[in-house]
Amino acid sequence: MAHDRDSVRALLDKVRASGRTALTAPEGKEICDAYGITIPAEALATSADEAVSSAEEMGFPVVLKIVSPDILHKTEAGGVLVGLGSAEVVRAGYDQIIANAKAYSADAQIIGVQVQQMLPPGQEVIIGATTDPTFGKIVAFGLGGVLVEVLKDVTFRLAPLDAGEAASMLDSIAAAEVLKGVRGADPVDRDALAGLLQRVSELVDDFPEISEVDLNPVFASASGAVAADVRILLAEGQPREVPKYTTEEILSVMERVMKPRSVAVIGASNETGKIGNSVMRNLVDGGFAGEIYPVNPKADSICDRKAYRSIGDIPGEVDVAVFTIPAKFVPGALEEVGTKGVPAAILIPSGFAETGNVEAQDEIVAIARKHGVRLLGPNIYGYYYTPSSLCATFCTPYDVQGSVALTSQSGGIGMAILGYSRTTKMGVSAIVGFGNKSDLDEDDALVFFGQDDNTQCIAMHLEDLKDGRAFVAAAREVSKKKPVVVLKAGRTALGARAASSHTGALAGDDKVYDDILRQAGVIRAPGLNDMLEYARALPVLPTPQGENVVIITAAGGSGVLLSDACADNGLTLMDIPADLDAAFREHIPPFGAAGNPVDITGGEPPATFEATIRLGLDDPRIHSLILGYWHTIVTPPMVFAELVGRVVGEARARGIDKPVVASLAGDTEVEQASEYLFEHGVPAYPYTTEKPVAVLGAKYRWARNAGLIPD
Amino acid sequence: MAHDRDSVRALLDKVRASGRTALTAPEGKEICDAYGITIPAEALATSADEAVSSAEEMGFPVVLKIVSPDILHKTEAGGVLVGLGSAEVVRAGYDQIIANAKAYSADAQIIGVQVQQMLPPGQEVIIGATTDPTFGKIVAFGLGGVLVEVLKDVTFRLAPLDAGEAASMLDSIAAAEVLKGVRGADPVDRDALAGLLQRVSELVDDFPEISEVDLNPVFASASGAVAADVRILLAEGQPREVPKYTTEEILSVMERVMKPRSVAVIGASNETGKIGNSVMRNLVDGGFAGEIYPVNPKADSICDRKAYRSIGDIPGEVDVAVFTIPAKFVPGALEEVGTKGVPAAILIPSGFAETGNVEAQDEIVAIARKHGVRLLGPNIYGYYYTPSSLCATFCTPYDVQGSVALTSQSGGIGMAILGYSRTTKMGVSAIVGFGNKSDLDEDDALVFFGQDDNTQCIAMHLEDLKDGRAFVAAAREVSKKKPVVVLKAGRTALGARAASSHTGALAGDDKVYDDILRQAGVIRAPGLNDMLEYARALPVLPTPQGENVVIITAAGGSGVLLSDACADNGLTLMDIPADLDAAFREHIPPFGAAGNPVDITGGEPPATFEATIRLGLDDPRIHSLILGYWHTIVTPPMVFAELVGRVVGEARARGIDKPVVASLAGDTEVEQASEYLFEHGVPAYPYTTEKPVAVLGAKYRWARNAGLIPD
Repeated sequence: MAHDRDSVRALLDKVRASGRTALTAPEGKEICDAYGITIPAEALATSADEAVSSAEEMGFPVVLKIVSPDILHKTEAGGVLVGLGSAEVVRAGYDQIIANAKAYSADAQIIGVQVQQMLPPGQEVIIGATTDPTFGKIVAFGLGGVLVEVLKDVTFRLAPLDAGEAASMLDSIAAAEVLKGVRGADPVDRDALAGLLQRVSELVDDFPEISEVDLNPVFASASGAVAADVRILLAEGQPREVPKYTTEEILSVMERVMKPRSVAVIGASNETGKIGNSVMRNLVDGGFAGEIYPVNPKADSICDRKAYRSIGDIPGEVDVAVFTIPAKFVPGALEEVGTKGVPAAILIPSGFAETGNVEAQDEIVAIARKHGVRLLGPNIYGYYYTPSSLCATFCTPYDVQGSVALTSQSGGIGMAILGYSRTTKMGVSAIVGFGNKSDLDEDDALVFFGQDDNTQCIAMHLEDLKDGRAFVAAAREVSKKKPVVVLKAGRTALGARAASSHTGALAGDDKVYDDILRQAGVIRAPGLNDMLEYARALPVLPTPQGENVVIITAAGGSGVLLSDACADNGLTLMDIPADLDAAFREHIPPFGAAGNPVDITGGEPPATFEATIRLGLDDPRIHSLILGYWHTIVTPPMVFAELVGRVVGEARARGIDKPVVASLAGDTEVEQASEYLFEHGVPAYPYTTEKPVAVLGAKYRWARNAGLIPD
Repeated sequence: MAHDRDSVRALLDKVRASGRTALTAPEGKEICDAYGITIPAEALATSADEAVSSAEEMGFPVVLKIVSPDILHKTEAGGVLVGLGSAEVVRAGYDQIIANAKAYSADAQIIGVQVQQMLPPGQEVIIGATTDPTFGKIVAFGLGGVLVEVLKDVTFRLAPLDAGEAASMLDSIAAAEVLKGVRGADPVDRDALAGLLQRVSELVDDFPEISEVDLNPVFASASGAVAADVRILLAEGQPREVPKYTTEEILSVMERVMKPRSVAVIGASNETGKIGNSVMRNLVDGGFAGEIYPVNPKADSICDRKAYRSIGDIPGEVDVAVFTIPAKFVPGALEEVGTKGVPAAILIPSGFAETGNVEAQDEIVAIARKHGVRLLGPNIYGYYYTPSSLCATFCTPYDVQGSVALTSQSGGIGMAILGYSRTTKMGVSAIVGFGNKSDLDEDDALVFFGQDDNTQCIAMHLEDLKDGRAFVAAAREVSKKKPVVVLKAGRTALGARAASSHTGALAGDDKVYDDILRQAGVIRAPGLNDMLEYARALPVLPTPQGENVVIITAAGGSGVLLSDACADNGLTLMDIPADLDAAFREHIPPFGAAGNPVDITGGEPPATFEATIRLGLDDPRIHSLILGYWHTIVTPPMVFAELVGRVVGEARARGIDKPVVASLAGDTEVEQASEYLFEHGVPAYPYTTEKPVAVLGAKYRWARNAGLIPD
């Protein structure tokens, strides 16, 4: 739609010139007109004739209201008449209002009577736009009244909206059904509402100086959507500038960080217990094949490598400089690193913004910008990239190569990632600490890991985003190809308080993060352990080719709990067709339950498991399997694990690659069986019916967002 | 309040006699009058004078409505006038309505005009009572309109309600704030609403034949609560009879089941792999000190014990007979058991109601009733009671004595309980299978474990309740003394479908279960693993003496996630007073954050942990501690674990017994450290910030319900 941008530009300039930030009602109306935002027709009448002709123009019924600077309480003054349905009634009403006003206050200056189109009864909704510190312009939608104010039933999206995004907002509130018509009401005009959302989003996108738009209430009915009240505010200051880099620039530095030919360790040390010693040893012990240059003015050799007094003394090129010196020495060393032309500095030291020392951090950022050095950190544990056998960290080396890249904003969470990875033998491509994020951050990592063939899944712990728009742009692209899991800490009011004491970051409202991360195709993990479990299981699970999930269980009790978990995770239990039901029944005892869950009952031999699982894999109408195992002497845990591993492996060899997960109930042998299954491509868990379904649910959420599930 | 029960009795008898189950509006009004349920005053007027005097009696304003069997669309006929505020207006209105009606339909028979009290504008709410298959009479409350119909924002309680329960309903809906007055509205008269709920609950409690009451809508305002529409239905049939036992009867049999002097095994066998062999060996190997009598007509001795041809041949008294024979032999053997006077039979065999063979189950129940034998099962794994060293099960023995009793309706879940207990070394007093619950069930177990000094916590997996009222009665009593954790399977629509295919049990609506279990003081576990984790941690945690929770963390990142978890679990982060803040600051680096979380920062030595934890334990204003550990070389995991164990132990020795939980982030050594801490009274978990807070939250939920937290 063609908006009249010129008139809005002129109007905003005029408002700016007058020094105001709040627009008047007529100014709001002018902007609404320019952007096709429907508001009630209105006109000022100074005679009964004028009132009648205005009313005839806008259509009956109308509302009449006294206009007088001296009458604040119009209703009290008898200055409001509603629902006037004909020319005669409007004429009489005009005279009556004027008479009432004079009777109420003889001295009042009377400008006239406002004639206003009366809105058809409809559903009250709220449409707004605001400027989020993380994401910039965002659009909000909710139902009016109690639902928004008490239940906070509201949804957010980045502006501008495309048509699909605008339409999706109508379905993203809890009370979405109301818009479809309940209690005998007609459904609202969804196109009109979605169109209104789009127009508001375009307005704030076109004019970033508009900090806030409130259409509240909007009356939505079967015949359209009309904004009964409009409030527009302009920003007081200018939006902050965020440095922007091109994809090529990001990839160029990230390639050198992750696949360096040479690494210098500034502050390398021979002294056990020193960070500069740990980093050196991890680089050496981790098997990094490139050059390792220790830098230390007081040593000739460190970990059997020649040491250099300063980075400038290193003869060859240096791709990465890892800093392991105290904060106060960083600026000087960073100048040398910059002079040497090193593209990236890994700043392990703490003592910057996280301790309140913002100036020190600003200083190093300025030095880095001057020299074109990109920074990771400060205040981090370093990073791992297993395809390069690179452990540029003071933690212990990690060498189980695999396809998941994990990042964390906090060192503690990084250590939890490391321990969990080691104990579960999770295959990892990278673990990266971001700490204070003075420069490189999650969107840079997304850009790199998105195109990194060694990485099939990305899991990120974060407390804030420096540039929400850059993150969303990267996540949108990457999540079409591989799952992006995010643990957003500071979700709650209590959590957000801790976040601001920790990093000084302004934690945004969680609902905004939640909606916009989903809009970006990100899978959100509700907690730390969930993020780790998703990261471990998602790369193992193939992408489901449809929504039909079947539970095959030997324990009816587990079947019920697995079904509960399916509902919790938005999975659809397949409605089993009669022929398939009959096929399952051929393999299970007469008192077993076919249907879904398929309950093969508890005392069955391996052959029953094998036959039913094989059936589930082979039938193309079934898209995913959830297995419920119950420990018996007839089919012990490892027998079950081996047969499932074999049957699934055979199916994959035949080109049938469906997600299969398992819940194992039994004595402690089920732990070993679960490990075996995981190693054979079946995420399996002992003593829980929730986890296998949660990871399958996460895979589905990703696949749906990425548009990978055929309809 | 004194209700007029006699008039209701007479009215219901009259309705019954007429063969109806639906009450007419005047009958509904009569019942409302008898129970003090306010409905709008109304009267029939056949003259303008009568209309005026009725209106004067009920108070202005009033509504007038034509009463004519020939006029269905009263409004269309000009037969309704609202808001008539004076005698004159009512008089004129009467005449007008009659005139309008005659003009509308000259032939219409006109009975007169109904004068109705006009309700003040108020909040629409819904109050109802219904008959739940599990819980019997229950009362429902919700806000009218969209909130109930679309968002299902409704809450339930058992009838009858006491005043506190009735009041609690007003706070148990999501939109509770609406009743307190939002958007300028006055708060509603809470006493009037709660009183109305109580009266409805008393009505259905007094007259069980009333199957349903609907007051919809009720207009609640600052001046009262008036039911604008009343619908009352009577039950078609008679409620089913559930056998009732006294507490003494239950305890008498449960004592003999759990602490038997002698156990007979019907179907004992020497053949490895047979259930009758497993049970014998578990009894013997488990160390049961009483008599063990194998019963098998074909053997002289089993597991080195003299075998008997039938139970009748056993010389001494037998407390428990464990059945390990196929279903078809159970009735005959049960007759013999009954004749022998054995008080309890443990029916391991399957092949009864769970396979559709309801008749077989009815048969054994009848035999048992005839002889006064109580039944556990059929279709179970048996049971464990560790204080008696009793493993009457075909699973493996379990011998880690402790204070939690667990029960499960399903064998698979029972095996998960066993494996989890063994791997976590969870101290257990009992594990009991209930299976088909033909007789003994969860409320019998609650009665026994409630008074069992060996049991401090009870955790139950269940899919249905045979007698919801008996369960609630037992749970209410027991949960005042010890936590009762329930995993209710079949929570969701999908889950409920699986439940009915599994046990034939009618899974009730989950919201009813949820509200009523909470009303009974039960802690509900969201999933299997949660139930197990609660069961393990709750007996270890002391009861908190107040709501002030403090997080002490070495990793700011964990602090944020722990704070998120506190909000998720309804825990209150203490607002730290200035003097306490200063005291914490004395021990932590200047860039650490006091406040709450107390962030001691990552590089601190054991002394900092010790000083801050000691401060948290010693200050009486702090009631619970959550510790966030981050693996460093300065304070390695086991150093942390030992110091926390020591400091907490010393405090307990000094009489300071506060709940302390811990989240450990780090390399795999944190697993051993977590185990150590758990063994030393501090529930601790690696790689998760959620679990420690979840178990603390469960302890708080219990303690609040039990009234154990001082205000």
